Amino acid sequence: MRSKQAFQPGWCEIPPGKNTYRSIFKWGASDKFRHPTHNLYTLLKDRLGMTDADFKERLHTGDQTVKLDRPPALNHAHIEALREMVGDENASTSDYDRVKYSFGKSAYEAFQLREGNVGQVTDLVLHPRHRQDVINIVAYCHRHTIPMVPYGGGSSVTLGLRPTRPGVVVVLQTHMHRILSFNEENQTITVESGILGPDYEHALNHAPEMFGAKYAYTAGHFPQSFEHSTVGGWIATFGSGQQSSYYGDVGDLVMSQDMVTPTGAIQTLAYPATATGPSINEMLKGTEGTFGVTVSATLKIFKHLPQNRKRFSFMFPNWRNTVQAARSIYQGEFGRPSVFRISDPEETDIAMKLYGIEASSLDKFMSFRGYVSGQRCLLIGQADGDQSYTKTIKRNVMKHCRRYKGMYLSGLPVKKWERHRFADPYLREDLNDFGVVIDTLETAIPWDGLHNLYEAVRVTLRIHPQTAIMTHASHFYPQGTNLYFIFITHRRNIKNYLQFLHQIIACIHAHGGSLSHHHGVGRLMAPWMETHLGKKSLDLLRAIKTHLDPHAIMNPGGTLGLEPTGTDRFP
Amino acid sequence: MRSKQAFQPGWCEIPPGKNTYRSIFKWGASDKFRHPTHNLYTLLKDRLGMTDADFKERLHTGDQTVKLDRPPALNHAHIEALREMVGDENASTSDYDRVKYSFGKSAYEAFQLREGNVGQVTDLVLHPRHRQDVINIVAYCHRHTIPMVPYGGGSSVTLGLRPTRPGVVVVLQTHMHRILSFNEENQTITVESGILGPDYEHALNHAPEMFGAKYAYTAGHFPQSFEHSTVGGWIATFGSGQQSSYYGDVGDLVMSQDMVTPTGAIQTLAYPATATGPSINEMLKGTEGTFGVTVSATLKIFKHLPQNRKRFSFMFPNWRNTVQAARSIYQGEFGRPSVFRISDPEETDIAMKLYGIEASSLDKFMSFRGYVSGQRCLLIGQADGDQSYTKTIKRNVMKHCRRYKGMYLSGLPVKKWERHRFADPYLREDLNDFGVVIDTLETAIPWDGLHNLYEAVRVTLRIHPQTAIMTHASHFYPQGTNLYFIFITHRRNIKNYLQFLHQIIACIHAHGGSLSHHHGVGRLMAPWMETHLGKKSLDLLRAIKTHLDPHAIMNPGGTLGLEPTGTDRFP
Repeated sequence: MRSKQAFQPGWCEIPPGKNTYRSIFKWGASDKFRHPTHNLYTLLKDRLGMTDADFKERLHTGDQTVKLDRPPALNHAHIEALREMVGDENASTSDYDRVKYSFGKSAYEAFQLREGNVGQVTDLVLHPRHRQDVINIVAYCHRHTIPMVPYGGGSSVTLGLRPTRPGVVVVLQTHMHRILSFNEENQTITVESGILGPDYEHALNHAPEMFGAKYAYTAGHFPQSFEHSTVGGWIATFGSGQQSSYYGDVGDLVMSQDMVTPTGAIQTLAYPATATGPSINEMLKGTEGTFGVTVSATLKIFKHLPQNRKRFSFMFPNWRNTVQAARSIYQGEFGRPSVFRISDPEETDIAMKLYGIEASSLDKFMSFRGYVSGQRCLLIGQADGDQSYTKTIKRNVMKHCRRYKGMYLSGLPVKKWERHRFADPYLREDLNDFGVVIDTLETAIPWDGLHNLYEAVRVTLRIHPQTAIMTHASHFYPQGTNLYFIFITHRRNIKNYLQFLHQIIACIHAHGGSLSHHHGVGRLMAPWMETHLGKKSLDLLRAIKTHLDPHAIMNPGGTLGLEPTGTDRFP
Repeated sequence: MRSKQAFQPGWCEIPPGKNTYRSIFKWGASDKFRHPTHNLYTLLKDRLGMTDADFKERLHTGDQTVKLDRPPALNHAHIEALREMVGDENASTSDYDRVKYSFGKSAYEAFQLREGNVGQVTDLVLHPRHRQDVINIVAYCHRHTIPMVPYGGGSSVTLGLRPTRPGVVVVLQTHMHRILSFNEENQTITVESGILGPDYEHALNHAPEMFGAKYAYTAGHFPQSFEHSTVGGWIATFGSGQQSSYYGDVGDLVMSQDMVTPTGAIQTLAYPATATGPSINEMLKGTEGTFGVTVSATLKIFKHLPQNRKRFSFMFPNWRNTVQAARSIYQGEFGRPSVFRISDPEETDIAMKLYGIEASSLDKFMSFRGYVSGQRCLLIGQADGDQSYTKTIKRNVMKHCRRYKGMYLSGLPVKKWERHRFADPYLREDLNDFGVVIDTLETAIPWDGLHNLYEAVRVTLRIHPQTAIMTHASHFYPQGTNLYFIFITHRRNIKNYLQFLHQIIACIHAHGGSLSHHHGVGRLMAPWMETHLGKKSLDLLRAIKTHLDPHAIMNPGGTLGLEPTGTDRFP
């Protein structure tokens, strides 16, 4: 029973002030908030050993106006030459813009901004109007060896956007968000790289009105950052969406690109498949701004058939059964669900609280049947496609889940999840305000390494007292899946916090996980790249880098591990 | 009615003599033959304006013993050093071996061998026993700048195996055909690159006996060369199998590789997906021996479920309807048939003859219904996977085909096709013996370019009198398909024949086709690579080549267009 007088923390409901640090680190729309529910708040206090008293005063709120203590370091003549290229209104050296466009959205960066401790920032922010602007800027910077960071939606969580030397940032989302062509016969679309997820999806959903198409389409790509990330950013980080298990990752979706590199533009060919040597298109995916600026891309699209969607959810008695069910489904040769997410016991318990199932009669029934809190695991999923296909999938999913003692819970939990699928990151500011950190790390893993890696990361995290950790897998393949770790802990100082992250990354690396399934490497995972991929592989990436960017101007300073970096050399 | 006294050409039924040229160019097993049926023979005479008299004497049969007029050009000390590495029994400088391992299986190469006009051949044939042998050989050749061609099954049809300078050939199929590991949990297998298709598939089909697996598996990869090509060769040429429309091409199937390059071995990581920079694994596919020698690879495998297979075939009134049906099926979001092949009117007519349908009551019924010879087109296909999935697919295929006036013809034609799916190349020797050439070129094309390209190639071929051309598409994607041209014509001299091929390649290139969908580039398509991919793209491939193989020893002489070549500089 929730007391009517229960204490309510003073969650912030005021949009950040203009030109404040808070306006930079706040996730998403400035006037949109999502607060922890009472259940979640209670749970947090319990797990983190906190009391209402800890939630009385908001700290390091970042409400101060951005103020830099130094002018741009870049030579004035360069600034003027570049400003002239794009026009006055598309070039800025204001303190605010220099800070804003030098940061991504990682928890660590939010700390830096809350403390007004911004370190290296860019000198000049440029908003190119079209491909030719990008060509001119890149050529100029190449000629004069001026470092450059391409910036899409700014939602990097890998320190991938942090400048390490004086230079410029090139912002693609401002002007370069046009749809260049739509081809219904080939089921492809060509867009400028700065288009944001919702605009891209909206155009496809409205293809009949917008392009005179016969059908409506979908991109099939819905990363959690969907609302605040760009097509170019998806390609640069090798992104995956929440329906990737059917529609595919960037590796599957992007057919061709037009990338402006310091040594010229590379335009790849949009064939459905081809045997004309190693794929140049693949070489330009996941480059995280280190090879050049992707100005446009051609992507596969899919018929938009929301009316055929089939949702399902199950409770399993334990984590091992849940993983087995997921594996047998994705190895089942009957098609693949699009949304598919399995939560470990800890995430399941929190989901039960958030969805209001805990302590309900359903909960009692589940416990009675042996699905007990602390062991039971939730699976939610959805099938997309033709109606005959989604029906076949749901029927098979039921069959496979029953085999591993999955108890059917209807499609409702999926709908609940759907409602907030892009909103979870909004919780962060509230928690941060009271010294609580919520952060994530993620990895890919073949099936046979999953349990070992899962346990190892949890052991590493349990060393830290009063830390909650939730794990799920949400991208599935016949050969394996990803593991996504969400941890909630007390705020430490910045240096200690980085060490904390490094421990987890080192653990993932040591236990056979990929350094990233879909967030990318950036500067956060970079120090492990050489031992992870192997020196010969990294040398190959470096050779390509040297060929395309001989003066090393593109997103320099360690991204992808292309330049040697230690864990002590973070931006 | 076939007369009992009908003339029968003297098709050769004698296995080629030991050490003869014929034993090199003959397709497949030496004691296996497949002769043109009477119907096909009659058709050929008609189309090519030939008479029985033209089929009386076999010409240029290549029955003479291989005899080279020159000793190995490679320095004796090098030959001895390399021989010592692998042991006497695994090194050969015999005339026969030098010729045998310097040739692939293209029609052009068969001409050269029939005439005993072999041009440049290798000096030394090496059969490495294991990875370490390959490492030693590559390191030695790198140190001494000795050209090297890796040789898998020898079924290249792109002049991809022809040496252009004195050097060595490294044959992978002799010893390096071991299965290194089998992983049922991950549904992957790791094999040495020299394993031949049937051995690979046999092991997977018998996984319960061979590896104690719970299920039987399939590779899902069945190129026409299946019986005589290796896993390494598939990867080197970016191959596709006849069931690729469901199981995927090499691009989808190969998860990781171990490639020995002149600057060291690169081992890529077998994750189901990963966001750790551009994919090194992708960079090492389709390299056609120019970057290094793939010694092993990890591939995806699939449950082997032949009991669930559903076959279907349809007749369509014309080519446009057939293409429309195929497109709507692969854009239908209900899963994908594995085998899928649509034949143009000419190929359909020949299939009708071969399958004995022509002039039958079924034929009369079809003609009556408006499916007339010269316009009607055949579709054959098959679904693989779980039973619920194959049923769903077949039901949907029926629906989509009906929409475009497809008349259902049962699954029998698929079974007929299946029986000979790997045997068609055996026809070649018989035709060649009487001065008739049968050859193929193939390309990938997005849907919106298909008809234009199809017509253009036919116009180009019609310039040549008495040439039969058949076209089909057999690899399908939502974004497009391939076009596979089979042409039968009179033998010309070698130079004229190359010019003939060049005309067709130039036509494909000019009309938007890819230079290859799944045969690869080799030296045949190489002269078009730079204009096809664009100079910047080819320069990128060249930079990688220079990094991995700085002395340019790996399959040198123009393969993939990495070195400039004109159409006049063929091996």
